[in-house]
Amino acid sequence: MKEIIRDNMNNDIVIVAKNRSKRPMDKVAIQIEEETTLEYDKECPFCRGNESYTTNERFKIEDEVGWLVKSVDNKFPIVDELPGEVYGLHEVMIDTYRHNGSFYNMSEDEFKNMFSMYKDRYITLMSDENIEYVSIFKNFLRKSGASLIHPHSQIISLSILPPDIENEIEISNRYYRDNDVCLYEEIIKNEIENENRVIHNGSYFLVIVPYATKYSGEVRIIFKEKIGFEEINEKHITELSKIFQKLFKKLYNMSGYNAFNLCIHTHPLKVESKKNFNVHMHIIPRKYSFGGFELGTGIYVSSINPEELAKKLKF
Amino acid sequence: MKEIIRDNMNNDIVIVAKNRSKRPMDKVAIQIEEETTLEYDKECPFCRGNESYTTNERFKIEDEVGWLVKSVDNKFPIVDELPGEVYGLHEVMIDTYRHNGSFYNMSEDEFKNMFSMYKDRYITLMSDENIEYVSIFKNFLRKSGASLIHPHSQIISLSILPPDIENEIEISNRYYRDNDVCLYEEIIKNEIENENRVIHNGSYFLVIVPYATKYSGEVRIIFKEKIGFEEINEKHITELSKIFQKLFKKLYNMSGYNAFNLCIHTHPLKVESKKNFNVHMHIIPRKYSFGGFELGTGIYVSSINPEELAKKLKF
Repeated sequence: MKEIIRDNMNNDIVIVAKNRSKRPMDKVAIQIEEETTLEYDKECPFCRGNESYTTNERFKIEDEVGWLVKSVDNKFPIVDELPGEVYGLHEVMIDTYRHNGSFYNMSEDEFKNMFSMYKDRYITLMSDENIEYVSIFKNFLRKSGASLIHPHSQIISLSILPPDIENEIEISNRYYRDNDVCLYEEIIKNEIENENRVIHNGSYFLVIVPYATKYSGEVRIIFKEKIGFEEINEKHITELSKIFQKLFKKLYNMSGYNAFNLCIHTHPLKVESKKNFNVHMHIIPRKYSFGGFELGTGIYVSSINPEELAKKLKF
Repeated sequence: MKEIIRDNMNNDIVIVAKNRSKRPMDKVAIQIEEETTLEYDKECPFCRGNESYTTNERFKIEDEVGWLVKSVDNKFPIVDELPGEVYGLHEVMIDTYRHNGSFYNMSEDEFKNMFSMYKDRYITLMSDENIEYVSIFKNFLRKSGASLIHPHSQIISLSILPPDIENEIEISNRYYRDNDVCLYEEIIKNEIENENRVIHNGSYFLVIVPYATKYSGEVRIIFKEKIGFEEINEKHITELSKIFQKLFKKLYNMSGYNAFNLCIHTHPLKVESKKNFNVHMHIIPRKYSFGGFELGTGIYVSSINPEELAKKLKF
């Protein structure tokens, strides 16, 4: 008997097939990227001291030695400012000056600087009145789509509303119409009550393993308050930094130096959604690959037990 | 200036950013799975002679030496026959008895046997009146989701209609209502007229590089006739086998021993769609990984020139 579960935020369909993790596997050498130990690499365009490689510095936080984080124009942008069917800015936000920095080893202070930069760049990019949406995301290691190892995040403003955001907004609006209550408030309430999938219940953020997700091992961080990403203050940034520092230590202890993506789902800028939609983050490990079944049908298969995973990651 | 293009079959949004293929990359050792040379591996559950590893043989084609292709129950099924929210059968179809066989080196006769098996299993699995859809797909190498290297395809019957198929059917129905002509016939006509994205224009099948697709390097094979997959006859199977044999030689010469998926989009069994929808196949190379932008927005980025790719693969 197979159960179908649905991701309550986006309606993704997931078939629960727990035995599939027991499949025999060929003994194939799996690429694990080696952990970098160098704090500085003279060929890396994102290292402190190699400023000549990058153009148009947009933001930085410095100490007496030099910059700690900075944001620069992406030299190979997905969107640009020239008039066209889609328009926007694309910046690379360097998470830390340390070449060997990563979410797995960054200090709370490093995270604080990074999130302060996220906020600054978000406010700047959202201020253009032609922009419908600002996307913040991060690729870590090649398997997640990263081309360079130096830890960096990206921010892209878009003159169109992305389909995945439109879908989440539609679902939350429908939920409100049908139930007269916000979907995200319900999720927060239910997950805290249920407890089993909660990794951490903070003052401002709830960290959970979603009941259903197409991505095996996904962790979700939900803003408890109905605020825009531009409204995060020192308290939010401090809690978020503590959370990231602890969560990624747990992830490292569990699975090692793994590729992952971070995707922040913020509010659309021209569609009213603050009443029904809470900012949230998807942290997606890239250990597994979808197969032809997923690519050919849009149905996903989960062999993970969310409660067990939450237990392992709890703090 | 960035252009947005849409996949006409499924409405996927793609931003064309041709310069992105020039991004600098870290010199990371990329895992290329080694090409297997053994025709027989005593530990492989799918090798001829190792029948004790598999259960419930459902179909086979034999010659005087033994079976050439066979279909068996998947021991780790995504769906099963027990009553539940989703129900169906899941078989593994072994493409060839040769452990070192692959689409890159299979003969026309091997492909013929494989497609005859696809047809036989499709007819059997579609005959259950509770089934809404039968999905045929293939994963080759670990990056595509395959757990075993011995070349095999899979077939799954489902008591639900997959969202991706529902979406394609809706789009083709809408196109018919708006234009009074079948979308797939229009695509076939336009691609043949335009010529530049045609890899091969056969009697029964058109092989193209799609104008827009979320998967860099995808090749699509469209049935020219409005027939169900169960209706393919000897002539179709012969042409399809020649096409696969030539296409995968070309792909091998271009990119080597690469991971890929094959997804066959057949007709839903309970929703009338034969008037507006042609069976087609998606061949998806798994050389590239989506990044956080794609996972977080549902917008895809293409740096490929479909006309150039079609020219390289033309036969």
